[in-house]
Amino acid sequence: MLIARVMIDAGDVAWIESPGYGGAYAAAFAAGAEIVGVPVDADGLKIAANARAPRLIFVTPSHQYPTGCLMPIGRRLELLRFAEGVGAAIIEDDYDGEFHYEGRPVAALAAIDPDAFVFYVGTFSKAMSADIRVGYVVVPESMISTFELAQRHLGLLTSATLQTALTEFIERGAYLAHVRRMTRLYRERRDCLIRALAEVVGTRLAVDVPAGGMQLLVRYTGLTDDSDLSRRLLRSGVVARPLSKMFHHRSQERGLFLGFAAWTNAELVDGVKLIGRCIL
Amino acid sequence: MLIARVMIDAGDVAWIESPGYGGAYAAAFAAGAEIVGVPVDADGLKIAANARAPRLIFVTPSHQYPTGCLMPIGRRLELLRFAEGVGAAIIEDDYDGEFHYEGRPVAALAAIDPDAFVFYVGTFSKAMSADIRVGYVVVPESMISTFELAQRHLGLLTSATLQTALTEFIERGAYLAHVRRMTRLYRERRDCLIRALAEVVGTRLAVDVPAGGMQLLVRYTGLTDDSDLSRRLLRSGVVARPLSKMFHHRSQERGLFLGFAAWTNAELVDGVKLIGRCIL
Repeated sequence: MLIARVMIDAGDVAWIESPGYGGAYAAAFAAGAEIVGVPVDADGLKIAANARAPRLIFVTPSHQYPTGCLMPIGRRLELLRFAEGVGAAIIEDDYDGEFHYEGRPVAALAAIDPDAFVFYVGTFSKAMSADIRVGYVVVPESMISTFELAQRHLGLLTSATLQTALTEFIERGAYLAHVRRMTRLYRERRDCLIRALAEVVGTRLAVDVPAGGMQLLVRYTGLTDDSDLSRRLLRSGVVARPLSKMFHHRSQERGLFLGFAAWTNAELVDGVKLIGRCIL
Repeated sequence: MLIARVMIDAGDVAWIESPGYGGAYAAAFAAGAEIVGVPVDADGLKIAANARAPRLIFVTPSHQYPTGCLMPIGRRLELLRFAEGVGAAIIEDDYDGEFHYEGRPVAALAAIDPDAFVFYVGTFSKAMSADIRVGYVVVPESMISTFELAQRHLGLLTSATLQTALTEFIERGAYLAHVRRMTRLYRERRDCLIRALAEVVGTRLAVDVPAGGMQLLVRYTGLTDDSDLSRRLLRSGVVARPLSKMFHHRSQERGLFLGFAAWTNAELVDGVKLIGRCIL
């Protein structure tokens, strides 16, 4: 929201991943942007050479939201070159980069080229609690004073006391230890959810196995109305957001977006049984 | 900011008190409003029948910011009638209404007429700490779901844990006891500052004695450059904002805006001595 309000003038074009994060859409829309939903492939946002040139590009390269895919270095370099060419700023939302399970993480866009116009966004909402209301943006150096002013005037301040406590928590090494512990736990839960899905619904569902993060996407080609399925599951106590609601372009793909980080293995197995009963 | 973003379309007129709160100006401006600075008299905002009709009127009726004056019931009724007549919404910012020292408080605009289109805004920043980042808006009933959505999408959320703790603090009566204790203390500090100003700078300064709040305005007719004076005072360690920077219309009035709540009596007396040395 802060970045969109600073960078977007009414009518500027913003590229949003499709499927993608609704919060990014809302922020760009509220700032007056014309939004282009750019389809995502297995490497993340696919540069849309024919679409209107953007002022702002929103991406989640660590684990694409919601597909979970990792943007490889080749696509990252391509994206940086493209953004520089058209004079676009990039928002790199690394909302759950702390939790990485497989393979080496790829260098952040903001780290590949220190001169690139990239806003690197992170949060303590996932590793700590959404309740602490602390996130951060690494802002291009030329923009620091503008952002300080905008943050103050938009009322987007966070508690200084909390930030001090968090700093101490990080400096003592407790944050890193916590993230490591949770990474092990979340990997187990991810694997448990994948096993349960394979057992109960087998090949009827295709799972996008994410290299990290807290959610995974389950695609179901036989499914025509994932919103209705989602509503039915919710009545049984299973939170499964419909993929069709996450597209910002027309798409026939259907599926369910399942969080695994907040549930025990037993809860995950029970949830999958309920999914099985609803779709079989 | 939240109210301005919901209520203002680009080009809508917003009335802001002059002198008045810069944060209200910034929020309305950022939302695309055309801003009319409406002069304040001893009763608060003076309805400007000839100015462009507003969509939004921002007022601080409890203790006008920065003059400290209380809007009497007559002006309140007049303002409510006017706003209804032109279809304007009112933001009633009761940012420090907890601290009232003299006379009876007057009923809030939002309480006089429950059907009026008034947003009553309060904060725990003053009574507790700016650090807790909790404020509130009493929203007209028809707007509640819109505001819930806007608050979420603008990222203006506050910690639920902190709100729970604050609720307990209020329900136990501890908040009221705290406000009472601080009201006594702040009244003493206000009186100490007024006495010190009378002793040191005597009749050269005119003090607007506020019926409540945490600051007072000192007017100095002999003063031509209060910004320069403010800068010189700051170098001596005295925070005194220049009145001339708080106008949103042309005005020749000059003065200093002095906070008294955060300082001991001894610090206030020392500060006034420094002011005396700078202006005498």
